[in-house]
Amino acid sequence: MSKSRKHAFNAQKEITRISSFIKSQIDDSHAKGVVVGISGGIDSAVIAALCRKALGSSKVLGVFLFEERSHKSQDFSDARLLAKNLRIKSLDLCITPVVDSFLKLLKSNDCRVSRLTLANIKARTRMVLLYAIANQRNLLVAGTGDRSENLLGYFTKYGDGGVDFLPIGHLYKTEVRALGTSLRIPYNIVTKPSSPNLWPGHKATHELPADYDLLDRILTLIFDSNEGPKEIREKIGAPEDLVRRVIKLNTDSKHKRQTPASIL
Amino acid sequence: MSKSRKHAFNAQKEITRISSFIKSQIDDSHAKGVVVGISGGIDSAVIAALCRKALGSSKVLGVFLFEERSHKSQDFSDARLLAKNLRIKSLDLCITPVVDSFLKLLKSNDCRVSRLTLANIKARTRMVLLYAIANQRNLLVAGTGDRSENLLGYFTKYGDGGVDFLPIGHLYKTEVRALGTSLRIPYNIVTKPSSPNLWPGHKATHELPADYDLLDRILTLIFDSNEGPKEIREKIGAPEDLVRRVIKLNTDSKHKRQTPASIL
Repeated sequence: MSKSRKHAFNAQKEITRISSFIKSQIDDSHAKGVVVGISGGIDSAVIAALCRKALGSSKVLGVFLFEERSHKSQDFSDARLLAKNLRIKSLDLCITPVVDSFLKLLKSNDCRVSRLTLANIKARTRMVLLYAIANQRNLLVAGTGDRSENLLGYFTKYGDGGVDFLPIGHLYKTEVRALGTSLRIPYNIVTKPSSPNLWPGHKATHELPADYDLLDRILTLIFDSNEGPKEIREKIGAPEDLVRRVIKLNTDSKHKRQTPASIL
Repeated sequence: MSKSRKHAFNAQKEITRISSFIKSQIDDSHAKGVVVGISGGIDSAVIAALCRKALGSSKVLGVFLFEERSHKSQDFSDARLLAKNLRIKSLDLCITPVVDSFLKLLKSNDCRVSRLTLANIKARTRMVLLYAIANQRNLLVAGTGDRSENLLGYFTKYGDGGVDFLPIGHLYKTEVRALGTSLRIPYNIVTKPSSPNLWPGHKATHELPADYDLLDRILTLIFDSNEGPKEIREKIGAPEDLVRRVIKLNTDSKHKRQTPASIL
């Protein structure tokens, strides 16, 4: 995932290339189709649209994994509209009772649960449910992670990172938005701020050191052009300190992009 | 994990080598220690003993993740005895209410749950709990998987396979038992039949095509000596058909030993 990427972005070529990748993943594993966790956001909308293009609508199942507080939210209606537009089957599962049962068990054993720990429990609960559905119906779990999130380690290990394949794992977030426009994803989904939806009002920009427009330019220069903080400041005016924070996020999250460390 | 392994097994050397591997994992990640899921079986007993040797008893937390039906079972008392002998802190968490909440949610949405799907839900529930505890206390999750299970794909992806590092990932099951004896793990744990404990009476030998003594000899010849079915039959008398089944188990589980497939 940290390999450099040399090609320029072309939306139509990407759609063709990704469709063929999705199809080969399903064919090679003799699966019957894919399950996608639909959040109402851009990444999962793009994945659902690409899977439907690659496999046909009957082989794509969208699962909206919501919390009690977000029932009937804008995300909920966007997820519904998307499934309807794509004519894919969909399921709506409320994860709150499961998350509460984790919390009750931990707290009754004097294990404290911080906001970050709770966020990880939610992301992993979604993974368990997607795999239960996938196991039962012989589907693969399509991941919605992109290259920006991957390089920054901005995902939960064995949560939203726990998937079978990553159709847009090679694309930066800004490229995913461009792909969304080409795929005619509804405008309010394409322009919606990125969010992992792990607490009320949760936005990626609250946790990341800059917005994705700037982050993607920095990531490209670091990982595709092998430039350092000084060169990046000279080229695009990004503070060296910010570039160093991006490099540190990547280094500290190396373990998330690898299989578990072992002696051999 | 599928790389060949050339060295001969020596229990004392392994104990030294693994202890230093465990220590470097903790030091490199600036963690405060490890959490280990204790099952009452040989693998987790060996891991707990090795972690205690590497880090000292105050830096090892054992968590017994049991089901209601196995409360006060032999495994329960073995896990307790082990924690007491090693003088490590331990927690006992009953996963049944969480597993039931997953089942209720799935069934109320017309999602069927087979025995295998249920087994995977249990393994993943254990992972979520170990990580919640690890997240909160800045610990790493030590995996109990060994080379035999890894090569056969005999583990749940993002369940017991969802860990930070694998101290005995390079050792065959029969070697782990030998290590258990050297580490003075209680006799009834060392000789207990292997079990993932995912349903009542669950034994590894019910699911695997042979016992570990034979499987390990076959795996060694395939993966460390690069021998084929015919040569293995001639060398140790194992039926070619059995060797082919072992190769197929390895091939079919390749996706479990890799990070999610991606285009770049």
